[in-house]
Amino acid sequence: MKNILQTGIQNARNVGRYIFGSGCLSELESLLKSRRSEHESPVIFMVDEFFRDNREGLVELPCKSEDQLIYVDTRDEPTTDGIDNIVRRVSRENKLPCAVVGVGGGSTLDSAKAVSNLLTNKGCASDYQGWDLLRFPGVYKIGIPTISGTGAETTRTCVITNKANDLKLGMNSEYTVFDQIILDPDLTATVPRDQYFYTGMDAWIHCVEALSGRYRNPIGDAFSQQAIELCRKVFCDSDMMNE
Amino acid sequence: MKNILQTGIQNARNVGRYIFGSGCLSELESLLKSRRSEHESPVIFMVDEFFRDNREGLVELPCKSEDQLIYVDTRDEPTTDGIDNIVRRVSRENKLPCAVVGVGGGSTLDSAKAVSNLLTNKGCASDYQGWDLLRFPGVYKIGIPTISGTGAETTRTCVITNKANDLKLGMNSEYTVFDQIILDPDLTATVPRDQYFYTGMDAWIHCVEALSGRYRNPIGDAFSQQAIELCRKVFCDSDMMNE
Repeated sequence: MKNILQTGIQNARNVGRYIFGSGCLSELESLLKSRRSEHESPVIFMVDEFFRDNREGLVELPCKSEDQLIYVDTRDEPTTDGIDNIVRRVSRENKLPCAVVGVGGGSTLDSAKAVSNLLTNKGCASDYQGWDLLRFPGVYKIGIPTISGTGAETTRTCVITNKANDLKLGMNSEYTVFDQIILDPDLTATVPRDQYFYTGMDAWIHCVEALSGRYRNPIGDAFSQQAIELCRKVFCDSDMMNE
Repeated sequence: MKNILQTGIQNARNVGRYIFGSGCLSELESLLKSRRSEHESPVIFMVDEFFRDNREGLVELPCKSEDQLIYVDTRDEPTTDGIDNIVRRVSRENKLPCAVVGVGGGSTLDSAKAVSNLLTNKGCASDYQGWDLLRFPGVYKIGIPTISGTGAETTRTCVITNKANDLKLGMNSEYTVFDQIILDPDLTATVPRDQYFYTGMDAWIHCVEALSGRYRNPIGDAFSQQAIELCRKVFCDSDMMNE
């Protein structure tokens, strides 16, 4: 296929499946149940460090004893070394997990995507930073954003910083797209108010960018216009900054 | 997973990939090339009968000698017997095709989806009319609508009439969703003007329905609002009814 940068025609890869709505996190258990019974292998949960001490938002995470629960440090953005470390830790168990579940903001979701990719593509994270370098689909992965504005749950990239050469670059590939996403607005209840505001603004500005860009299309426009409308409802509500 | 009719929460299955824009039909060849080389088996083209005598719109169809080109009679809607006949015809070749490509309006696309499903799920079409009855993913399938208003390229159903019991019912399943769709507006150039008008109105009315329904959600709203806006541009253009 011609390079999209030459033709302007992109073969867009969709997220496989999406569930949305208040309370839909409860569907995760049954989604994992079918994966577990088909593959007889554990689930890797990669969860934003924030939830280590704030579990009330995640009481429903169906984490079993054979699974691995890995907290992702989100004070800094993901690094290639950090990703490689997690992959080594997961690989020690020998058995390919039946699913990788990312729960958190952009850094956590990007980390989950990268780990999923590297469990089936040999080598290390820096080998695959770039466009369409991955050779195999990663482990089945589920993205559960807990904050707005990142967009990491929908994109075909996961951005990672390589400290050795100081390059911040994505694994941009069809295989980076989540197989399933769960969009439960209840998860944003524990977001600190200032973060709630900043990430909401981030979502808004991304849409303004999209609608002002040169490579617009009706699908991007539809989502951007709708998101701006939803942002307006949230931002213009007098309760916006209340706990 | 709970039945969506009970919870109102649907795990929506997306079309796998989509290309859109004038001239993007030319991407079909390279899409099929990778399928052919991976599977070493032919492609089944299911094309609206209309194009048998009107090939100018489809000069680019990359149909090779080992492939099967089947014209779908669209004077009536698809029947279970008609689908079973096509499946028998395709199965005679013994080798599972590497792709089924549907090119046409709703009847043709629904036929392509049903045939793809039945090539991997034993039995006949009427066995799978209903909700989530298919057991296996069908053959990889590409949908190429040549007319607006049907929506068959996006849905998880294909509607078939069973003449024996007079039931018109879909194979409603995740597996019915197309793996790839190609949305090339150039294909609508040969649509007869009255059909062009009626199918455009059909698209419009579907959106009005969606925006007036009880089970609305922001994603459906986004697409419906955008489609209505695009319909307005086409319908309110003074050239609308010109050849």
